[in-house]
Amino acid sequence: MGVSPDVNDAMCPSRLVLEHVTSRWGVLVLAALLERSYRFSELRREIGGVSEKMLAQTLQTLERDGFVHRDAKPVIPPRVDYSLTELGAEAARQVWELARWTERRVPAVEAARVRYDEARRAATA
Amino acid sequence: MGVSPDVNDAMCPSRLVLEHVTSRWGVLVLAALLERSYRFSELRREIGGVSEKMLAQTLQTLERDGFVHRDAKPVIPPRVDYSLTELGAEAARQVWELARWTERRVPAVEAARVRYDEARRAATA
Repeated sequence: MGVSPDVNDAMCPSRLVLEHVTSRWGVLVLAALLERSYRFSELRREIGGVSEKMLAQTLQTLERDGFVHRDAKPVIPPRVDYSLTELGAEAARQVWELARWTERRVPAVEAARVRYDEARRAATA
Repeated sequence: MGVSPDVNDAMCPSRLVLEHVTSRWGVLVLAALLERSYRFSELRREIGGVSEKMLAQTLQTLERDGFVHRDAKPVIPPRVDYSLTELGAEAARQVWELARWTERRVPAVEAARVRYDEARRAATA
């Protein structure tokens, strides 16, 4: 590792941070929490396809990295709210933009795939 | 799936596109190609820890999605250059920013982890 952090260096700690922020569920959790705070069960409903285990693991990783704040209220039944820290909001704004960009650009990607597959078929015909 | 693409819907095609853009190697490939075009072997040296197989797979996925242009020159020895399409550059600018942000914020993340681990130790002591 050089003097300054470099994600292209497999040993640099920044590589792992980037992997947490861009992990399959990390991206979606950060983007969701940018809009509002969530309880665990609400967040699980919001993010389609995430298992309880993966969501718990993702939230814990993001909490340890200082991106997510976990607020356990001493009430019965127990209530736990998740929200972004300031650091987490910095990351979340970027992945939120990326998520919205992806949604907008899906038609362009699908058109590209059709072209790619047709070119492949033509090349092997 | 609703009328407009939604990455929170596990069945929405945008989910998979987001996963390609934010995949472990996809992020690093897009960010590297934003700076200049690369030959395969150069890119492999640039991105620490990527295997030949994973890099080839990542490039093929990004090419099929219309993000990466593969230019095979008819020379001996064979020469293949990879560069970004316009669509790919849109994605790459965002992940490049995220990579640079991550590198800048590593110290804040490391400080948060120390706090988290200390709080955990205190709670179980």
